[in-house]
Order: sequence, then structure tokens, then C-alpha cells
Amino acid sequence: MTIQILGSGSGGPFQGRNFTAQLLRVEGEVYLIDCGEGTQHQLYRFRARYEKVKQLFISHLHGDHVFGLMGLITSFCLKNRTETLTLYGPPGLRQMVEVNSALAGVRYPYPLEVVEVDTEVHQKVFESTLVEVYTVPLAHRTPCTGWLFREKKRHPNMRSDKILEYQMDYASIRAVKSGADLVLADGRVIPNEELVIAPPPPASYAFCSDTAPSEHVAEWVKGVHTLYHEATFTNEHTEEAAISGHSTAAQAAEIARQAGVGKLLMGHFSARYKDLSVHLEEARAIFESSYAVEEGMVYEVRREGIIS
Amino acid sequence: MTIQILGSGSGGPFQGRNFTAQLLRVEGEVYLIDCGEGTQHQLYRFRARYEKVKQLFISHLHGDHVFGLMGLITSFCLKNRTETLTLYGPPGLRQMVEVNSALAGVRYPYPLEVVEVDTEVHQKVFESTLVEVYTVPLAHRTPCTGWLFREKKRHPNMRSDKILEYQMDYASIRAVKSGADLVLADGRVIPNEELVIAPPPPASYAFCSDTAPSEHVAEWVKGVHTLYHEATFTNEHTEEAAISGHSTAAQAAEIARQAGVGKLLMGHFSARYKDLSVHLEEARAIFESSYAVEEGMVYEVRREGIIS
Repeated sequence: MTIQILGSGSGGPFQGRNFTAQLLRVEGEVYLIDCGEGTQHQLYRFRARYEKVKQLFISHLHGDHVFGLMGLITSFCLKNRTETLTLYGPPGLRQMVEVNSALAGVRYPYPLEVVEVDTEVHQKVFESTLVEVYTVPLAHRTPCTGWLFREKKRHPNMRSDKILEYQMDYASIRAVKSGADLVLADGRVIPNEELVIAPPPPASYAFCSDTAPSEHVAEWVKGVHTLYHEATFTNEHTEEAAISGHSTAAQAAEIARQAGVGKLLMGHFSARYKDLSVHLEEARAIFESSYAVEEGMVYEVRREGIIS
Repeated sequence: MTIQILGSGSGGPFQGRNFTAQLLRVEGEVYLIDCGEGTQHQLYRFRARYEKVKQLFISHLHGDHVFGLMGLITSFCLKNRTETLTLYGPPGLRQMVEVNSALAGVRYPYPLEVVEVDTEVHQKVFESTLVEVYTVPLAHRTPCTGWLFREKKRHPNMRSDKILEYQMDYASIRAVKSGADLVLADGRVIPNEELVIAPPPPASYAFCSDTAPSEHVAEWVKGVHTLYHEATFTNEHTEEAAISGHSTAAQAAEIARQAGVGKLLMGHFSARYKDLSVHLEEARAIFESSYAVEEGMVYEVRREGIIS
């Protein structure tokens, strides 16, 4: 599971930072998270292969998280898309899409579905063969939800040397893959763990876009490999963070510490900060594995501190 | 009068071309024309001083001309704007702004007005001290109007040497500026044209965003100094132009020739063209002073062929 950052700023396209958007990949599956103005520009700029995206998750309807949506889904029309696209987001998302589409005269050659979720409840809203996606209610000035992506537990892989050694047939292989031990013709029992290669532990990623610090959030994202948490401000502007329903880097780090996550990715930086060294310093004093995201970069969700 | 190009492409942010938007300046006055996605990014990128803009003219509601509007007018909120902003555009513009503003929770600290114009009639819709703006009905797939900017005739400037020579008082100066001859104490009459420097002829600029070729347009923009006319396609794709309600470079040039304009600026290029030499060649065969616009460039409206 990897996450590519398409935007790391808030407020305006300043300091080389675009509005919030991210691309999550799990093997062949691609998910888009938030879609600020210029997201399609960033996708093109970074040569990101996103055409296979089938689900797009919008945290809330503030412009810096959604004003690129209409442009993106309109551009899909020109690409002769035929596959269904499903948008998940807060109440109001459907009206936004329907009114803009009608006024702009967009006729979608592909099925476009909108699923409005309850932003006040932590629950599973989507499931594919590889992942489950949950809402993570956030504390912002408008209905707003984070998104928690959990990889499903995978079947183990068979050891090919053992298949040969014990001349295993398909029925035995299927049984062993599902967890059974192998009983040989002579009655010997080969324990399951000797026959398989354990799959990697399921990766988990939590995206918390715009939020004041929330203990509930820390509970819901407990133990994820990677937590993205907004860190709009530094300690100097703690009061402004509280008034505007945002977090400081230190507050984001405190959530990461409480939740015991693998690493913290910080973003949604206010345009006033040219340099992010204060964010990093203040966060790392509380939670060592804190990083300030960089646009275009792809982060490995599972590994701590590794940036590819 | 100058025009700065903020976007020259159609369909997507490809080939280094953004969606349509332009900035028109007449001395201290600034006007924005169309506002495709990423317009605020382009304004920032080109360090364009646009904060003084008070009127924004939208040709039609297709996304590549309007999906940057919400982002721009929301960003004005963060800049503590207090001055009224008036949006001119086709019917539906008000609903688009109102619905998006309500859903995105935008509260404007400045008065925001929307004027929906009749896109089927050529008429004056706005007037400042320096310019008049007229609609130019276009032939597109949706209600669409071009915009014609005409500088007003200016008062001539007094020749300072003549003020001294004839010891003119304020009353005489005022009379001469309004066109009167000067009658001296000894009865001699000094003709007006000897006392003043004639103002430059009023500049005129026509913006025709998305349109099939139209003889009416050629009539309405007759004799303008600069005509911006879309030239989405080359001759090779004339049929596609007709189907989609667009023009080829040759058709744009033919309109420029019929209208007898000073120069033609072509834009709204389809993403399929990496190189614009065919557009230029086909246009110049019909109308010599044809140019393919470049993003960020500022064009002098009055002078033919001059690019600053």
C-alpha cells in the first residue's frame, strides 16, 4: 500500500503547494482521496496512473478539498471512460455534483454514483477484494470525515518446494491455504506453518484532513501503519488553530503518539509557512516518526520512516 | 489596453496549456475574462497583480471556462477583500455560485453580485470611466457570449508649452480640453488642434471563447484592434469542429479578415496538438496578422503584431 501526495497546502496555491488530494494504491487498486482545485493538473504533472480509479473519497465540502472534483470527473468524459465511478462524501456532495453537471452541460458516458455517508459515525462504507474503508468522524467547522483504509488479511502463499516434496494435489493445497495441516498417506502430520509463507501483515492508512485534535480520532486510528493528519499551524498559532477547527503540528503528533501509529505524515500547511522545519521540530519532540509531506512523493504505508 | 493570457488550452491541462482565462488591463482598471480550473494558480504563477479586479466576465458555463471561479472568489475571502466583485455571465451563473457557496460554507466578507446577461443579444452590459463592455452572441452548444471591450474616447491632453505661451487660465484650459478654440485678448483665434495633443484612438478588444464561425460575430467585432477567437482545430479536423460547435484556425482567420481587425490572437487549442505551426500556417494563409497565444504573455491590444 502506497500513498502519493498531490497537494499539501491550504488556503491557496502558494509556496509550491497545491490543495489537498492523495492517491492510494493497493496492488492494482487505485483510490483518490479529496480533490482540491488543480488535482487533475497534479495527476498529469506527476504522470500518475490514476485512470483505473473507481472510488473517490471526499472528506468535506470546503473548496480546498473539493473544487477540483468537477474538473476531474468532466475530464474523464473526454477519456472515453465507461467504468462506474463512485464518489463517497458528506451530505451535499450529490447536490454539488448534480447542480454543477446540469449547469455545465456535462453528460457522463460512464455511470457516476454518489454515496453520501454519515460523517458522525465510525463505520465501514466500502469493501473491495483487498481493502475495507471506514469513516473517521473529524472535528471541523462543517460535516467532515477522515478515511481509514485497512487491507484485508490475505491467504498465505504455498511453499513450492513443499508441494513437490509431498507431491500435494489441488485439494490438499486448497486445504493448507485455508489453514489446515497436511496429513500424509503414512499418517504423519505436517504442521501448516511449515508449508506456507506467511503473508505480510495487512497495511492500514488513516487520512484525517481537516480537524481539531480529537481523542476519538486517536481511538479510531489506533495502531495504523501510517497516519496522515493535518498540521495547518505551528505552536505559535495554536489559538488560530482552535478557532478555525484545525490542528498544530504538536497536536497532530500527540494524536499519533496516543494512537501508537507507525509514522505520521503531516500536511495541509498554512500558506504563511515557507519553511516547515518548525512543524517538524515541534512534532518530533512529541512523536519521533513525524514527516512533512512533499508533493508528488510516494510514501510506503507499511514501513516506518521509509519514503520511496 | 493589454491582455494577458492565463490559459490557452481546451479539454485538459495538457501540453503546458491551462484552461481559458484572461486578464485585461486599461490603465488602473483590471478585468478578468473566463475562469477555468487553475486560474488562481496561473495568476500566482505569473505574479499577475489582479487584486483590483472588480468585474469578472464568464462566456459560458462549460467547465473549462468556469470551474476555477469558485476557487478564485473563495480565495478572495482569505485576502480580506472588502470591495464589491461583480460576475457577468449567462443564465445559470447565479445558481452555480449560490449552490456551491452554500454547500462549501463560503461566507463572503465582500459584496458579491451576479449579473446574468442575455447571450442572444449584442448589447452594452457594463460601463466604467474608461471602457464599455458589450456581449457578442456566439454559436456554441450552450448559451455563450463573447465580450467586446471598447475604450471610451478620451479628452485630449493640453500642450504645456502653449499654456505658457498664451498664459492660459483654468477656465480657458477647461474650454480648450472640451474642444473650443482659444480667443486671445487681442482678438486672435488659436485653433484647438494647435493647443492639444490628440489622445490615442480608443482601443478595442473582442474575446470570442467557444464558437463555430459566425458572420454575425464578424459584424459585431468589425474593426477591433485585437480579436481573440478560438481556434480549437486545424483544417484536418474541420468536421469535428462543426460537430462540437468550435472553429478551425482557418475559420478564425476568415472571421478576422471579414471583420478587418488589427490582429488575431488564437487560443483554446485541442490537447491533441503539441505544436501549433499548422494553426499558424493555415490562419496566416487567410489573415497575415494571426498569432497563437502563449500563456503568461501580455499582448498590447492597440498595436498590430506587437507582443510585449
